[in-house]
Amino acid sequence: MVVELVSVGTEILLGNIVNTNAAYLAEQCASLGLSLYYQSVVGDNEKRLKDTIKTAMKRSDIIILTGGLGPTKDDLTKDAAAKVLERELVEDEHTKKLIIEYFEKRKRVKVSKNNWKQALVPKGSIVIDNKNGTAPGLIIEEKKDKNIKRIILLPGPPNEMKKMFENDIKPYLSKLSDEVIYSVTVKICGMGESLVETEIADLIKEQKNPTIAPYAKMDEVHLRITAKASNENEAKKMIRPVVEDLQKRFGDYVYSTDEKETLEDAVVKMLKKRDLTLTAVESCTGGLFSGRIINVSGASDVFKQGYITYSNKAKHRLVGVQKATLKKYGAVSEKVAKEMAKGGATAAKADAAVAITGVAGPEGGTDDKPVGLVYIACYLNGKTNVEEFRFTGTRDKNRHSSVAKGLIMLRKMVLDLEKSEKKEKKK
Amino acid sequence: MVVELVSVGTEILLGNIVNTNAAYLAEQCASLGLSLYYQSVVGDNEKRLKDTIKTAMKRSDIIILTGGLGPTKDDLTKDAAAKVLERELVEDEHTKKLIIEYFEKRKRVKVSKNNWKQALVPKGSIVIDNKNGTAPGLIIEEKKDKNIKRIILLPGPPNEMKKMFENDIKPYLSKLSDEVIYSVTVKICGMGESLVETEIADLIKEQKNPTIAPYAKMDEVHLRITAKASNENEAKKMIRPVVEDLQKRFGDYVYSTDEKETLEDAVVKMLKKRDLTLTAVESCTGGLFSGRIINVSGASDVFKQGYITYSNKAKHRLVGVQKATLKKYGAVSEKVAKEMAKGGATAAKADAAVAITGVAGPEGGTDDKPVGLVYIACYLNGKTNVEEFRFTGTRDKNRHSSVAKGLIMLRKMVLDLEKSEKKEKKK
Repeated sequence: MVVELVSVGTEILLGNIVNTNAAYLAEQCASLGLSLYYQSVVGDNEKRLKDTIKTAMKRSDIIILTGGLGPTKDDLTKDAAAKVLERELVEDEHTKKLIIEYFEKRKRVKVSKNNWKQALVPKGSIVIDNKNGTAPGLIIEEKKDKNIKRIILLPGPPNEMKKMFENDIKPYLSKLSDEVIYSVTVKICGMGESLVETEIADLIKEQKNPTIAPYAKMDEVHLRITAKASNENEAKKMIRPVVEDLQKRFGDYVYSTDEKETLEDAVVKMLKKRDLTLTAVESCTGGLFSGRIINVSGASDVFKQGYITYSNKAKHRLVGVQKATLKKYGAVSEKVAKEMAKGGATAAKADAAVAITGVAGPEGGTDDKPVGLVYIACYLNGKTNVEEFRFTGTRDKNRHSSVAKGLIMLRKMVLDLEKSEKKEKKK
Repeated sequence: MVVELVSVGTEILLGNIVNTNAAYLAEQCASLGLSLYYQSVVGDNEKRLKDTIKTAMKRSDIIILTGGLGPTKDDLTKDAAAKVLERELVEDEHTKKLIIEYFEKRKRVKVSKNNWKQALVPKGSIVIDNKNGTAPGLIIEEKKDKNIKRIILLPGPPNEMKKMFENDIKPYLSKLSDEVIYSVTVKICGMGESLVETEIADLIKEQKNPTIAPYAKMDEVHLRITAKASNENEAKKMIRPVVEDLQKRFGDYVYSTDEKETLEDAVVKMLKKRDLTLTAVESCTGGLFSGRIINVSGASDVFKQGYITYSNKAKHRLVGVQKATLKKYGAVSEKVAKEMAKGGATAAKADAAVAITGVAGPEGGTDDKPVGLVYIACYLNGKTNVEEFRFTGTRDKNRHSSVAKGLIMLRKMVLDLEKSEKKEKKK
């Protein structure tokens, strides 16, 4: 069955607010096994709203409209839907009672006349109580030729809409579909999107069910494998071999197959597993690396303290980078990065340290040290790796890329450590 | 002239990512005085993409498509547009050269075969260089009957798309209208959106030209004043009194009227002007505050070093928070926040310090110290202010809100210092 989303409201249309409702509903519908081909946004204009509903009814079976159910005169969704479906608006007694209760609860004696408008519903529609507001949700089942078109109207405020979808709409929709969609994401770091794509060209060429879709995230590539089946277990069975194949192809580049796990989650988990502590010494990234690590709930077991050493003096004072090194090679250099990492680990009594120094831009670039030049050093148990990067993005992008590369380098070093230990054991 | 936005990508369609591009472009088009009636989202499917472009061309003069220009197999936007407009795809030599340079810069010897696909452009289109990626932007001017339809293709990654729009598309679009649209943004911090809106309800009610549109940003409210006139000076003249009125109404809450100036820019500028140096001592924000300060190019004059003190030990060792204070009040407390700020300023020999300690969540909350409880202390020239906040968002949102509040507190303290000095002078 094909569902379509229509977001109603000039404030979304003109970009005053970001359309998070559509993202939420799209993900929900996908998880219900509904096919979603179109989303659209239209302002508070009756003619264009009616046109949008008509177009949607031609190409989709279920149309979910959000917004425009409020009490004001530019809330037009109900009127537009009623006109397209040629149904009159009738007062819903039950909703009227709820509106009165709602205002009594909030000690607002007088209900504004506009609010009664919210008790009007297209004749014959299923009314969904709104436990967090005054505008009810509506489901209208419209017989068209042999099949049924379903128009679902939901309030615009995300907290009202989500609760209503979760409690009432989801159960209603899940009854309609006899298929289940299930998907797993294989998350890859340290390899570019087009290279990943080349590696799986053969799979993508043959794909039917399950399908593979690559998503380029900031310095990562996510491969989403999606299967349609009669039930979740069946879908899982179809997906498993594909995931295993991808894990074979990409090996250590795969850092997770868990929808919720981020790269920093994976890195913190690795360190935790081996009781390794981590610190960071940051110059151009100025705390963003530590900030990303500490975004992992429970990072405190691994990360105790970090240093932001933006000036040369700070590099010397806080983590003991030698003045001579700074003088001879400059703050943005392989040597200084190495001393920052090693010195940071010593100062923080940590097993591992990531140090980042570079020219983030837009100012501060020279011919031999251009904007985007970044050195990242990674220290682990006495060993220090250092890499040179040349980023070409904005200051902000360069800094975030540096953080990602730091995480990837650290992860690789821990993996290499594990490998060498395994070798040792074999001997 | 009527513009329409089409966001291309299954990732957006299925809600894997929120459509921030559309919000950005809608805001930009509004500021250019273009009418926007429809936005739509379509997946990586050629037929549906073509249908969407056809529908858009029927009802709009300019169609801006974002996404689907990448090197992979499911990047179909160019092909779809070329087919709808019945133009063949030809290789653009200049773009090919840029792609080679792009990879050379990154020391990637081997350009993946897919990347050449990005050098193909619909015959006769205006090619826009992509300075932050490999997919060029495209403007196609299509004569239809008497008038011209314009199809604009932009890459999906926000950093690439925004740069391109700012540098090339905006100037191109503004030339199309004989009217000049000019807008100024009054940026307000430290006051909630609904309060701001109540303060200007009268202005919004009467508004015609110039118009005022409020945009709620993360812990800020931006008021965009837009005027249509025959020339820029005329428009500026119309806007000036409105800006002055708003500055009167909101006073110190206005931190900038400069489109490009961020809150951290404004704060660093204030500190620089008074030769004040700043440090930060961060627990739950783990470097995000320093990271935001250091995102200001040239922050090095103001910010030399910072401390990430995630563990109690680190709070004691790095900035000298007393063990007794930690023991008696706990790490998340007014007292500890104060000692963090004062101790940080001393350790870093800085004039000012911002300290942040709290329970970011989702774990770690207790009855008396729930998730979202954050203490922020701000030290300046011997004086320390501390505030308690109770945030209700996700871990990430709470941490970013904490950073914003820290900036706002610091700014207020510097403003108060300036005021008291002025008073002194008067005496």
